[in-house]
Amino acid sequence: MTMPEVVLVEANPALLFKGVNDPGFDGAPIREVDPYGKHLSVFDLGFIRGDGIFEATSVVGGVPLAMKLHIARLGRSARLQDLPELTGEQEWLDVCQAAIDLWGQPEETGTIRLLISRGADPVTTVGQAGHPGTPTIFIFVDTVRTPRPLTLTGTLLTRGYSLELVRTAPERHPWLLIGAKTLSYTANMATYREAVRRGADFGIYTSTDGYVLEGGTSSLVLMKDGKLTTPIPDVGILHGTTQQEVFAYAERRGVPHEYAFVTVEELLDADFVWNMGGSRLSAVERIDDVSFAADTEFAAQAMAFFETERAYIEEYTTGPGIQRWL
Amino acid sequence: MTMPEVVLVEANPALLFKGVNDPGFDGAPIREVDPYGKHLSVFDLGFIRGDGIFEATSVVGGVPLAMKLHIARLGRSARLQDLPELTGEQEWLDVCQAAIDLWGQPEETGTIRLLISRGADPVTTVGQAGHPGTPTIFIFVDTVRTPRPLTLTGTLLTRGYSLELVRTAPERHPWLLIGAKTLSYTANMATYREAVRRGADFGIYTSTDGYVLEGGTSSLVLMKDGKLTTPIPDVGILHGTTQQEVFAYAERRGVPHEYAFVTVEELLDADFVWNMGGSRLSAVERIDDVSFAADTEFAAQAMAFFETERAYIEEYTTGPGIQRWL
Repeated sequence: MTMPEVVLVEANPALLFKGVNDPGFDGAPIREVDPYGKHLSVFDLGFIRGDGIFEATSVVGGVPLAMKLHIARLGRSARLQDLPELTGEQEWLDVCQAAIDLWGQPEETGTIRLLISRGADPVTTVGQAGHPGTPTIFIFVDTVRTPRPLTLTGTLLTRGYSLELVRTAPERHPWLLIGAKTLSYTANMATYREAVRRGADFGIYTSTDGYVLEGGTSSLVLMKDGKLTTPIPDVGILHGTTQQEVFAYAERRGVPHEYAFVTVEELLDADFVWNMGGSRLSAVERIDDVSFAADTEFAAQAMAFFETERAYIEEYTTGPGIQRWL
Repeated sequence: MTMPEVVLVEANPALLFKGVNDPGFDGAPIREVDPYGKHLSVFDLGFIRGDGIFEATSVVGGVPLAMKLHIARLGRSARLQDLPELTGEQEWLDVCQAAIDLWGQPEETGTIRLLISRGADPVTTVGQAGHPGTPTIFIFVDTVRTPRPLTLTGTLLTRGYSLELVRTAPERHPWLLIGAKTLSYTANMATYREAVRRGADFGIYTSTDGYVLEGGTSSLVLMKDGKLTTPIPDVGILHGTTQQEVFAYAERRGVPHEYAFVTVEELLDADFVWNMGGSRLSAVERIDDVSFAADTEFAAQAMAFFETERAYIEEYTTGPGIQRWL
C-alpha cells in the first residue's frame, strides 16, 4: 500500500475547546478528508479576517517534536485572542497523533500544522446559519521534500515598535496581539520577500530603539564567549519552542545559556548565531554586512538531540524557568 | 421566484490579474457556487497565512457605492503586498456587477465583499500541485439585516507606532504593510473586543506620539468651527472611500474640508465627529470620557447624497487632490 504524501483531518472542536458545540462530528475526534478537496467555507473568519491561531512542528520517526510546547503556546495564543479555552493537553496530543498515524510514514521527515480559526463569521448570513463562535480546526501532516538549509543569511528589519511598548503589550495593549501566533501572518511573509529583495534568506525584527526581537517566522540564539543568549520573550515575541529545545540541549551539555535583552550591537558582535523553528536549526553566516563563523555542527548535534532525548527535553522545558511565559 | 439572501461567486484570476493562469474557468469571468458549501482549500494562503487583500462596500438599488474607489485601493493593496497587478477597472466592475445581478434585489440594501488571496501555498504538497502564484478570488453579496447605528461611542487605542514611522512606512518599511488592506485583520477585530470591554462600540487607533489615525475598520471625520477635517492618509492609514465621498458631499455643499495631521487633543476638541465605512456614517457621541453633540442629520444627508449623486462623487474623487494616495 502506498502511503499518502499528505494527510488532512478536520478535528472536533467540542473535544478540544471548552464550551463549544460539536458541529456534526457525532462525538468523533477527527474526520479525514481529501487534502486536494475544498473543505473550508469562504465565510470562515480564518479566511475573511485571518482570525485564528496556528502551530507547526517537525515529525520525525512518527513523533511530533516538542508537541507539548506547541500545545501550551496554542493555549496562550487562544487566551490572547479571546478564543475559547483549550481542553486538556492529552486531547490535543491524541488528535495530533491520530493524524500522524494516518500519514503513517515513520521513516520520512514531515511537518504537522494545526490551523484554528474563530469559525463562521456571524456578520454574514451564511455565518449566522453556520456555527458562529465554534472554532474550525484543521490539522495536516505533509512530507518535507526540502530540508532546512545548513546556513542562512539574515537582514535586520524594524518591527516599528519600541521595546517599552512590546514589553508591556500583552498587559497594557492586548488589542495589538503582540506575542500571539495568529493566522494573520501576511506581514511575517512580507519580511521574507523584503529579505529576498535585499539578497538575504530571512528577516530579523528589531525594535525602534535597537533591540533584537525574533525572525519573521523563527527564533534566534547567539553564542558569545561560549555562552548562549536569546532575546527574552518579555520583548513581545513568541517563546520559541525550538529555542527551548536548544536550551535543554545546552543544559544537558553544560553550556551556559540565558534569556536577556539583546541589542543589535550584541547580536552583530556574537561569535555564532543560529536561526530556528519547527525543531530545525540553521547556522547564520551573515547579517547584512556582518559575517559570522557558521557552526553547522552545533546545529546538527542539537537536532539529533531533539530527536532522541524527548524525555530530557520535556523534563527541562516543564521547569519553572521555562514555564513562566505561558 | 424567491431571490437568494446571499450570492457567492469565484472569479477568474486570469481576467482580473495580469500574467496569471485561468485555473479551470475556461475563460468564463465567474462561476456561481452554493454560498453554504465549502469552496476553499485549507492549503490556500488566505487561510494559512491571512495572505491576501479585500474590499467591501454597500449595495443600494443594485449599485455598489464608490466601487471605483474600492477597486483603486485594491490595486494599491496589491502593489504593497507584491501581488500581481490588477488588469483594468472595467473588468473588476463587470465581475462585481455580475455578482450583484445574480443577487438581484434592487430594493434591498446589501454589501458586496471581495476576498483575494495569494493562492495555493507552494510550501505544501497540495499547494505545489495546485496553482501557486495564482490568486484565489471570491466575491459575495449579502443582504444587510442590521443597519449601521445612528450613533456610536469610541475609545482611543494606541497603534503602537510613532507618527514618523507610519508616515514613511510604505517607502522605508514596506514589509510592515502599513496602509494595505490585507486579509490579516485579526488585530483590527481585537480592537472591537477591547472596545466592548471598555463599554464602547469601536476603537480609534492613535500613534504613540498622540496623533489620530483611523478606526479599527473605519475612517474618522471631525468638524470644528464649521470645517471638516480628516487624518491625512500620509499617516499610514487606509484612504477611506466613504471619507472621500463625504468630502465630495462637502465640496458640493460648500463646506470647507481638509486633510491634516490631527492630534488627539484636536479630535477631542471637535464640535462633531463621524465614524464611517462602506458608504455608511454614524455620529460619534462619546470618545472615552468626552461627549459630542451627535449630528445624525449630517450623516443621513451625506448617505442620501452617496446614493443619488454618483456622477458628482466620481468627478470629485478622480481629481488630482484625491488621487495622490493611489
